[in-house]
Amino acid sequence: MANSKYEYVRLFEQPDTLLPNTWIVVRIDGRGFTKLCAKYGFEKPNDKRALDLMNAAAKAVMADLPDVVLAYGVSDEYSFVFHKTCQLFERRASKLVSTVVSTFTAFYLHLWPTVFSAAPEGTGLVDDVPLTAPLLPTFDGRAVCYPSVQNLRDYLSWRQVDCHINNLYNTTFWALVQKGGMDSVEATELLKGTFSADKNEILFSRFQINYNNEPEMYKKGSVVFRDYELVDPTSTNVAKTTEVADNQAEPPTLSKSKVESEKKRRAKARITVEHIDIIKDEFWDRRPWLLTGQPGTLPKQL
Amino acid sequence: MANSKYEYVRLFEQPDTLLPNTWIVVRIDGRGFTKLCAKYGFEKPNDKRALDLMNAAAKAVMADLPDVVLAYGVSDEYSFVFHKTCQLFERRASKLVSTVVSTFTAFYLHLWPTVFSAAPEGTGLVDDVPLTAPLLPTFDGRAVCYPSVQNLRDYLSWRQVDCHINNLYNTTFWALVQKGGMDSVEATELLKGTFSADKNEILFSRFQINYNNEPEMYKKGSVVFRDYELVDPTSTNVAKTTEVADNQAEPPTLSKSKVESEKKRRAKARITVEHIDIIKDEFWDRRPWLLTGQPGTLPKQL
Amino acid sequence: MANSKYEYVRLFEQPDTLLPNTWIVVRIDGRGFTKLCAKYGFEKPNDKRALDLMNAAAKAVMADLPDVVLAYGVSDEYSFVFHKTCQLFERRASKLVSTVVSTFTAFYLHLWPTVFSAAPEGTGLVDDVPLTAPLLPTFDGRAVCYPSVQNLRDYLSWRQVDCHINNLYNTTFWALVQKGGMDSVEATELLKGTFSADKNEILFSRFQINYNNEPEMYKKGSVVFRDYELVDPTSTNVAKTTEVADNQAEPPTLSKSKVESEKKRRAKARITVEHIDIIKDEFWDRRPWLLTGQPGTLPKQL
Amino acid sequence: MANSKYEYVRLFEQPDTLLPNTWIVVRIDGRGFTKLCAKYGFEKPNDKRALDLMNAAAKAVMADLPDVVLAYGVSDEYSFVFHKTCQLFERRASKLVSTVVSTFTAFYLHLWPTVFSAAPEGTGLVDDVPLTAPLLPTFDGRAVCYPSVQNLRDYLSWRQVDCHINNLYNTTFWALVQKGGMDSVEATELLKGTFSADKNEILFSRFQINYNNEPEMYKKGSVVFRDYELVDPTSTNVAKTTEVADNQAEPPTLSKSKVESEKKRRAKARITVEHIDIIKDEFWDRRPWLLTGQPGTLPKQL
Repeated sequence: MANSKYEYVRLFEQPDTLLPNTWIVVRIDGRGFTKLCAKYGFEKPNDKRALDLMNAAAKAVMADLPDVVLAYGVSDEYSFVFHKTCQLFERRASKLVSTVVSTFTAFYLHLWPTVFSAAPEGTGLVDDVPLTAPLLPTFDGRAVCYPSVQNLRDYLSWRQVDCHINNLYNTTFWALVQKGGMDSVEATELLKGTFSADKNEILFSRFQINYNNEPEMYKKGSVVFRDYELVDPTSTNVAKTTEVADNQAEPPTLSKSKVESEKKRRAKARITVEHIDIIKDEFWDRRPWLLTGQPGTLPKQL
Repeated sequence: MANSKYEYVRLFEQPDTLLPNTWIVVRIDGRGFTKLCAKYGFEKPNDKRALDLMNAAAKAVMADLPDVVLAYGVSDEYSFVFHKTCQLFERRASKLVSTVVSTFTAFYLHLWPTVFSAAPEGTGLVDDVPLTAPLLPTFDGRAVCYPSVQNLRDYLSWRQVDCHINNLYNTTFWALVQKGGMDSVEATELLKGTFSADKNEILFSRFQINYNNEPEMYKKGSVVFRDYELVDPTSTNVAKTTEVADNQAEPPTLSKSKVESEKKRRAKARITVEHIDIIKDEFWDRRPWLLTGQPGTLPKQL
Repeated sequence: MANSKYEYVRLFEQPDTLLPNTWIVVRIDGRGFTKLCAKYGFEKPNDKRALDLMNAAAKAVMADLPDVVLAYGVSDEYSFVFHKTCQLFERRASKLVSTVVSTFTAFYLHLWPTVFSAAPEGTGLVDDVPLTAPLLPTFDGRAVCYPSVQNLRDYLSWRQVDCHINNLYNTTFWALVQKGGMDSVEATELLKGTFSADKNEILFSRFQINYNNEPEMYKKGSVVFRDYELVDPTSTNVAKTTEVADNQAEPPTLSKSKVESEKKRRAKARITVEHIDIIKDEFWDRRPWLLTGQPGTLPKQL
Repeated sequence: MANSKYEYVRLFEQPDTLLPNTWIVVRIDGRGFTKLCAKYGFEKPNDKRALDLMNAAAKAVMADLPDVVLAYGVSDEYSFVFHKTCQLFERRASKLVSTVVSTFTAFYLHLWPTVFSAAPEGTGLVDDVPLTAPLLPTFDGRAVCYPSVQNLRDYLSWRQVDCHINNLYNTTFWALVQKGGMDSVEATELLKGTFSADKNEILFSRFQINYNNEPEMYKKGSVVFRDYELVDPTSTNVAKTTEVADNQAEPPTLSKSKVESEKKRRAKARITVEHIDIIKDEFWDRRPWLLTGQPGTLPKQL
């Protein structure tokens, strides 16, 4: 039985390739995480285990997809940056988004027991929190293209500023509720219209909390990348690297052996999670490989 | 700290809403399932447990997303049909695709132990097959729009004919390898250019296998839908239902109570998996709710 | 000198094919026609010569592009309907839109002297109105897909209702200004919040104008189509034709000679402009060729 | 009569905004110009009047749309470059394409008599060539986005190299036909597989034509831009200007008076047509305004 009679339906599949030579950001978000947090008893305002799990899943995505040069996570969202010369899946949006979302989801579920089988000491949290259907953690996603390095950095800055704004708000809100005895309506009311300085002041004067001493992961979010030797800041800087990246019109044509050796170096590089500022130049000055897409020098074996 | 300086990056998000009044099919496919089948020892040509797991995950997706009116699965792929009046996520392609893929992945992993903890009796298969990283089951997906009922039915027929063609081929191929002592090159060579009748003949004369007696799930794939009372074929038929559906220009405007009662009926309906012909009219004649989108009559409680 | 070094830039051309099996409407609109009307002294509220010119240009577009089955024009806009099985330019949106817009513009300019060289008798209008740069008549356009006959008819009804609403308003407004001695602010104020009946009443009681007696072209707009013999309403009707059209999943596969003969019949058919109701069924009942896409019977030569 | 019942059809209009911060090139092409050239007796291989007309129409488009920073034309095609910060029509593709195509068409027709009413002296061409329906000059178009200056320059280089390749071929081909007495099959056969040097040699040895002495317009095409004072090459260069342009993440936020003064300077600038190399840096070195988008210094009045 031939299938030709029906095969015309393939013509309805419309192409969705993303514009070449642009940075692709796939951002995923937890679906209905308010309910999920309640069901599985996530700590407020931040649950360290849940964030560790997000980071572990993000590292697994990056290990699975070497085209991802950087990922940035905060709360129940994660942004994965594909280099602008990336040709993965012919840059088809649905293929890129669905692959990232599925891989992230798979590792999030698979690794769940590693963080949720034993409560952190002294937290008084329930010890073992197994996943039970039907409310399982799931994520949705979308892809966005950014033409220039500046646009990409502005996107990441936007997310990191958002992390700060939300975390300061949430830290203050939950202090008012958990330690200040307010209900959520009262706390919301109190915080309406306040500035950063006001929230810092509330935290300090009412609860003796110095916001600066809060964990970096909560204040800065999580940055995931391949870890090569930091570059001496006198040898290059982000302005130069940006110029290189912006001028790159196409994927570099490398010899087969060069491609292979880059691939190996990339595979050998440790994927690291740090909680640092990615808005200022310094982060980019010392890690030129993030923008050039060429793997750096592997750190010496100790 | 305001975030306005960076917020312009949101303008780079481009809309991807799917054309209104078209049937949306989200098809997902296993990523690298050849490797996965090898690692986890899936039976060839069909692994009943793996197919049961696909079906269970599909049922969970349908329970989670009431806008899905039908799903059809074969091998490591599944197609989810959203009714043409569906407004879920404002019909944004990436949102629909990523949600289906993530939910399917989550349930596939979560339910894995229910089918892979004990081997079917008498199969000689390994008893307990736990998932181990980094090779976890993941899926990718895409959305396609079909303007008319005929297009939609042709799409589903295309997948079911494909199921038949592939299964007949695979059944014969693996019989030649597993029972006929051929290697895969010899089997491929032998089957080159053969017609259905030839393969049926090989199966029967060499291995006493009557292809017609193979399990329906392998021959027809799996159809998942909400199960209402079958309709008396004298009262309506697919031609009439098609006309109703094609003439539907917009989602029906229902009273709030009507919306609520339909929602309840939909939630109460059992989601069933059957292995039957969906190419011929009969399947559609007796289940008008699939095309009209209006829930049918719930079967009487026994 | 080979051109290969730069040829990669072609990869940036993104496909824009329109979904198969949907009705394509290309609507064009005059750019800055307020200024244009002022410069060339168009009569208010309707300039017969300008509308005749629009219709003549639309007829020329239809003669040039046999895939257009119907066009509908009002004021400085025109909608061209391509049959849902149309394969012209592989259904590329920009190609379809730009071709329609350019052809329309070319004929609008070319035919300008035929309507604007002599003023209609007794109007007191200037006799010869030549086009002068830089303010020339130009148009922009866009393509929209409609999946079902119902959607397409609703689109056309929307435009014809709009024609009626605007024309009734404009007729009343300009009567108040031209005959009632009001300025435009006063007229606008008077008409604010009025219903159709109110406007009819103003026209009749103040200016002895019976709106029903206004020219059909102003009240109904202009419908352009190939003129075959009207069909006996007992032999078919729009419900049947709609079913045929909606069930058409693909372009019909015709024999080469059949294609040729249809092409000839289409070329022979007179393209006509009428000012009639296209909202009610009757128009469609008697002209099944508009929806089936198959040319009708040529009227007998007189 | 309200129009709400049908207004839902507007939802079928799908957005087509082009990615922000990318250079937009709208390229238009003559439709069926082979036939048109034959009908109106265009000279082969190049018709000076027809090219002058293309350039005049391009200048009119640029005067009408100040967002166009550069246009490049060859044969019956023209590419219009919109600056990457351009917000015209909210960057909607169909609006941009249709406006350029319609404006170009309008001026092409309007200006036709200025070049085709009198044949150039000594050419023996027919003196007056009026346009006659139905075969009128029309154009189609498409929009393409280029993320970086390098991509944009490579696009323009691609077109200019193409101009050279085609013109050398056509010059040789038509010399063989017009002066060498070959028919087109023979000429095609002779040129098959020849390199540039071969064609130069044929031209020179057989027809005493030194290709280098051919008119620049035929060899280089036509570059249209606003003419400011050339910049001293020691003060800046294209590498610097590229960096400025690539780093520009958003349209510059200018004071209202600055916007006004830039607008005035742009309007005052003469739009010029030149036939020069745009592949090498020099063209860009001395005209930084093309990439920065900021108007240069107006030349002193003589």
